[in-house]
Amino acid sequence: MSIQHKKLTIGLFGFGVVGEGLYKVLQQTPSLNASIKKVCIKHADKKRNAPATLFTTNATELLQDEDINVIVELIDDADAAFIIVRTALNNKKSVVSASKKMIAEHLPELLQLQKDNDTPFLYESACCASIPVIRNLEEYYDNDLLQSIQGIVNGSTNYILSRIADDGLSFTNALKLAQDAGFAESNPTLDVAGIDAVNKLSILLTHAYGVVAHPTNIIHTGIQNLKTRDSIFAEEKKFKIKLIAQAKKLENGSIAAFVLPQFVNSDNNLHHVNNEYNGVIIESGLADKQFFSGKGAGSFPTASAVLSDLSALRYEYKYEYKKLNNNRDTELTDDFYIKVYVSFDRLLQVPHHLFERVDEWTSNKNGCSVSGILHFSRLKDNWWRNDYTSIVLYPDAILNESELPAKSSNEFAAIWDNATVVN
Amino acid sequence: MSIQHKKLTIGLFGFGVVGEGLYKVLQQTPSLNASIKKVCIKHADKKRNAPATLFTTNATELLQDEDINVIVELIDDADAAFIIVRTALNNKKSVVSASKKMIAEHLPELLQLQKDNDTPFLYESACCASIPVIRNLEEYYDNDLLQSIQGIVNGSTNYILSRIADDGLSFTNALKLAQDAGFAESNPTLDVAGIDAVNKLSILLTHAYGVVAHPTNIIHTGIQNLKTRDSIFAEEKKFKIKLIAQAKKLENGSIAAFVLPQFVNSDNNLHHVNNEYNGVIIESGLADKQFFSGKGAGSFPTASAVLSDLSALRYEYKYEYKKLNNNRDTELTDDFYIKVYVSFDRLLQVPHHLFERVDEWTSNKNGCSVSGILHFSRLKDNWWRNDYTSIVLYPDAILNESELPAKSSNEFAAIWDNATVVN
Repeated sequence: MSIQHKKLTIGLFGFGVVGEGLYKVLQQTPSLNASIKKVCIKHADKKRNAPATLFTTNATELLQDEDINVIVELIDDADAAFIIVRTALNNKKSVVSASKKMIAEHLPELLQLQKDNDTPFLYESACCASIPVIRNLEEYYDNDLLQSIQGIVNGSTNYILSRIADDGLSFTNALKLAQDAGFAESNPTLDVAGIDAVNKLSILLTHAYGVVAHPTNIIHTGIQNLKTRDSIFAEEKKFKIKLIAQAKKLENGSIAAFVLPQFVNSDNNLHHVNNEYNGVIIESGLADKQFFSGKGAGSFPTASAVLSDLSALRYEYKYEYKKLNNNRDTELTDDFYIKVYVSFDRLLQVPHHLFERVDEWTSNKNGCSVSGILHFSRLKDNWWRNDYTSIVLYPDAILNESELPAKSSNEFAAIWDNATVVN
Repeated sequence: MSIQHKKLTIGLFGFGVVGEGLYKVLQQTPSLNASIKKVCIKHADKKRNAPATLFTTNATELLQDEDINVIVELIDDADAAFIIVRTALNNKKSVVSASKKMIAEHLPELLQLQKDNDTPFLYESACCASIPVIRNLEEYYDNDLLQSIQGIVNGSTNYILSRIADDGLSFTNALKLAQDAGFAESNPTLDVAGIDAVNKLSILLTHAYGVVAHPTNIIHTGIQNLKTRDSIFAEEKKFKIKLIAQAKKLENGSIAAFVLPQFVNSDNNLHHVNNEYNGVIIESGLADKQFFSGKGAGSFPTASAVLSDLSALRYEYKYEYKKLNNNRDTELTDDFYIKVYVSFDRLLQVPHHLFERVDEWTSNKNGCSVSGILHFSRLKDNWWRNDYTSIVLYPDAILNESELPAKSSNEFAAIWDNATVVN
């Protein structure tokens, strides 16, 4: 009945902050019975804080070394990362990876590779770093029991939003500060435009609902178009604006999923997730509402998640993708409604005919806004993807067909026409 | 390399709300490949929502059935629970238990039984129900990296404290409300006096630091002596009072651990853990600060944790007690200082000579209070264990010797003598 724990002999790709962090930590934790045999790096001539004999620039030295039974992949280049992971799995080496972009973009192939080779591929660090969200989704929630998952999954944007809300900075200044503090890349597009967040959501969807969706097929945006007028509106209503990745099971069994800015109430745990922290709320039939928060990025939080994957490999833990394997017909849908705030520079820009219902509108020197209900499929068109439009969801934004309030009268249209004239 | 997942054939002890919840959930999740073969109950004549053939009152039928490879123990009686678990482990059956009291009081024997039989004994549901704190402590943090753990681990007292803080109820009325809402037992002593919380802390200490301490050897109290004057004081300072179980690694490597009421700032995650929810903050060198919250009690949250243990048993997961096995000299200490508020009915009751330093004192018609620094060992004496004294820690209450502010002058003693005269 007893399982002898496996000794892990590691081939490590990448020796940046996370790789070096991992190297140090493994030296401090002999109880894990894991050691790094070789590290593959790109630039041989860089000075490293480890013996020179540890390093090579030849990937094959790691991938074909029969002693090495685990490949840990911590490099920046998603294409190179995929080739490494594919080769390693085909060589029956267990793999631990932190490359969310690579994983999200290659999920179908990676699932097939795991199946063909019956070899573990773990990537806890790819979502929210130190927060054990993937493992918990795998172990705790069965498909029919998981109601929703909502998360702040990108630390850079959360840091920027905190600076805007707490310190009154403009987006540009807040971004600059985030870059100076090391919380945003010099090319911040991946973070700021919500691409990093949607990559993570794509991974979470597979473990939460057994849905495999390419990130480009999930509607997403970031915080790049938020204006000062939006922060003012949020403050007046005692909301915070957060960039939320979410998925929710609808009444008909389909899944609503997207990454959009959202107003968050102070009674929502995510309201209190600030600066570079990440947070995830999982709602299920059994456990009810669970909340996890922690540092979502950085060398040591990421290394800590890699470490937990290594620990799991010792007893040959694999993701089972139970929900994917049992999934007959769960899929993403855009047939639902959202409660939304949209702001524009000028009244004439407002496509008010798109709204099912308008509950509130504002217009002043900073621009104008409409709060109301939209069919989600409206977001497939590009009317909101421009500099002068920003979009923020209300709390509990997702409405089933049955929850849709009755259509309002033409009162709004009349007011609108008058307002437009004045404007 | 592949492990065939074990089919779990379960013998279940207890068919209360959690047991019945588990029975229902297992029927809904065939993917787990686990089924309940027999349920042992105490009262044969009670009406049950399951086929009569499932039940027996004869424990031996389960414990000696060779088909049954897992015993799930969900009964109230700690002594009976221990006998069941001991027999099951000796019969090489894996065991899942939710009995925190039984586990905390029998840790040394239970550790030995697991070792002797090399058989898994899992009890995630015993601490904070749906929050996966034990598994995370086992998997994520190595001894030298874990700085502290702080938790609201008892839902009844947290519900009562929320009613006092949010609705201005007295302790007695809040307790009554908690009992009516099903959040407190008719005999609430286990919860209210901090016994349930210290049982959980005892279990957490083993997984966090490899320390085995009987709950009676860990200083603890509950919320039974808190007065309205304490709530008023907290409100004035914008604190909330929470019952916190905590452990912290001191500079000298020893562990400070106790369960006491504490003032919590709004920037502490635990401030936002209200009503029947539980929350745990884990601080470590790697992952930094991680926070988990969720329902800490109730049938489904508990069943969800039991389910995750069953899921882990399929790949023969065992707690490794790594920190215990590697622990050479980590032990509990009372040689440290705490920043504390103590209130009394009358000034003459204040043992001000016990304080290292007094920073603030109040006296009015509701009583009087002293805020200052105490050596923790002072709490081993009984001066504070009475109806007219209540004690609440300040935020960041634990001070190492090196953090102790310089001794104050005699100024306070002089004021005190005058005040006493007036009083």
